[in-house]
Amino acid sequence: MSKQNLLSLLEAEAGEYVSGEEISRKLNVSRTAVWKQVRKLEADGYLIEAVPRLGYRLTGKPSRLSLQELLPKLRTKRFGRKLHLLDVIPSTQDELRRLAEQGAEEGTLVIAEQQTSGRGRMGRHWVSPSGKGVWMSLLLRPSVPLQMTPQLTLLAAVALSRAISREVPVEIGIKWPNDLLVGGKKISGILLESAAEDERLRYVVVGLGISVNLEAEDYPEELLEKVVSLKMASGKTINRSDLIATILDEFERLYDLYMEQGFAPIRSLWEAHSVTLNNETLLYTPQGPIQGIPRGLDGTGGLQVEMKDGSFRTIYSAEIGEVGPRVD
Amino acid sequence: MSKQNLLSLLEAEAGEYVSGEEISRKLNVSRTAVWKQVRKLEADGYLIEAVPRLGYRLTGKPSRLSLQELLPKLRTKRFGRKLHLLDVIPSTQDELRRLAEQGAEEGTLVIAEQQTSGRGRMGRHWVSPSGKGVWMSLLLRPSVPLQMTPQLTLLAAVALSRAISREVPVEIGIKWPNDLLVGGKKISGILLESAAEDERLRYVVVGLGISVNLEAEDYPEELLEKVVSLKMASGKTINRSDLIATILDEFERLYDLYMEQGFAPIRSLWEAHSVTLNNETLLYTPQGPIQGIPRGLDGTGGLQVEMKDGSFRTIYSAEIGEVGPRVD
Repeated sequence: MSKQNLLSLLEAEAGEYVSGEEISRKLNVSRTAVWKQVRKLEADGYLIEAVPRLGYRLTGKPSRLSLQELLPKLRTKRFGRKLHLLDVIPSTQDELRRLAEQGAEEGTLVIAEQQTSGRGRMGRHWVSPSGKGVWMSLLLRPSVPLQMTPQLTLLAAVALSRAISREVPVEIGIKWPNDLLVGGKKISGILLESAAEDERLRYVVVGLGISVNLEAEDYPEELLEKVVSLKMASGKTINRSDLIATILDEFERLYDLYMEQGFAPIRSLWEAHSVTLNNETLLYTPQGPIQGIPRGLDGTGGLQVEMKDGSFRTIYSAEIGEVGPRVD
Repeated sequence: MSKQNLLSLLEAEAGEYVSGEEISRKLNVSRTAVWKQVRKLEADGYLIEAVPRLGYRLTGKPSRLSLQELLPKLRTKRFGRKLHLLDVIPSTQDELRRLAEQGAEEGTLVIAEQQTSGRGRMGRHWVSPSGKGVWMSLLLRPSVPLQMTPQLTLLAAVALSRAISREVPVEIGIKWPNDLLVGGKKISGILLESAAEDERLRYVVVGLGISVNLEAEDYPEELLEKVVSLKMASGKTINRSDLIATILDEFERLYDLYMEQGFAPIRSLWEAHSVTLNNETLLYTPQGPIQGIPRGLDGTGGLQVEMKDGSFRTIYSAEIGEVGPRVD
């Protein structure tokens, strides 16, 4: 018996109870085997009520993204208008890079219900189970020099932060350069992969991973100190299609603003949402750790850190360590 | 009859004449067909003497690069120590990018005798016939932020310029950012393709194309105003293995210097070799053309251009147009 046979049987009864005895007879398996398959369906996100003497009843199905639901919600001109919605894929980044090399146009979007080898920064594994998050990659072909890529990283963080705030009642802080935090815990990851020829960007693949409706049991226990989902933080189940449409809307608006007016407005928005600024911070740079107080961004997107002696250093690449109390 | 059959026949006679009649009989083809294949071998770089009544005689073979010749000349620790020497390939860049994605180490080098789809800047076709040039790609994995890539472009130009000057008696000028000129004509092209994750460079593939022993007839006529080979400029046939070994030597030295001391020494060397500085120049930037006098590089590798009103603009991306007289 596959779990699919059991599911068909429960679905055929349209929310009515089916006794374990009846199932085991119709599918010609033991009642222990029935129970095992029920557990498997539950792990896939199906809600199944089990009542002694009455049997099993299907009360909920896992949320699935669908083009039918998503497309009417899009308010963008280009972002997401070429859309690849996939069920299971190793990584949306790799798939979109492949499409980019084949000439896919700006705004092309790859969404997956589940990633089997989702990647975060530094090649770290990214938890991306089925049906509970937003795991997607967006293609940009910006006509800006390569040096400006860090500005796009910051822009992505601002767009995602604003979009989530519109859909979910949580307060979001941006940790430099692009981690979004709720109550000090990470709710999303952003990864930009860029390809350039000399100083010209050929394309940028923006990977966005958002922990939307994950439950505590979806995470490895040791991660729970550091991460949280929007559902866990807000107590609400979030409609993922609404969230995706709003992310694309915010992203396209800010991107157009950036192309028109440059980095200045993005910089102000980033600084306003940041939780990194004005806190004593330890930064692990490739040249070694430095300690200081990040005071703002410079015109290129570098982080300006005030050192103990009052001098400033501009940091382009670092992992942020412990964060101390606010120092104004 | 293939040209290979004819070649075997001529090689078997070890520099002696073989009459056209004998060839046409042995290969069972017309004498016109023999003559056509002789022309094809000549186009491949074989030297064939044709004397009435005596016939054809092989007097020279095209120069071929070989590992046997090249490896003993290498003086580097890493650059070129993993070496892929190929005969015909669409593009050394694409081949090395493929190797880079598979984890090839820094210094890996791909050399081709001939490229069938060699690319220059902006996807332009690059003339790269067999046996007469140096068409190669070198893999770097520098631990510098993405923003520093333009510095690597300038470093590559300095390394190539110094290496050529050591091997060939020509005076080389660098046109911003990385074209090498002899007597105002282009002798080489450099193309950096980089892949980054956020602000971290994953790798840089440095494509180097040098017109070494090409003759005027190897170029489309309309190009001859703009390009020249080292042989045409110096009157000498250059040993390509010597040149490759010296390029790798200069490149590794400067790269190590850059990693140790930063951009300052590279900047001085570039400025000393430049023909772009202190000349009234038209720069076609993505934002439109601007006119001014480039005065030097800034710390990140941008070109500092003095405008008519005395103000300075930093240019990261532009094609250089007409060059006026020197203005100090």
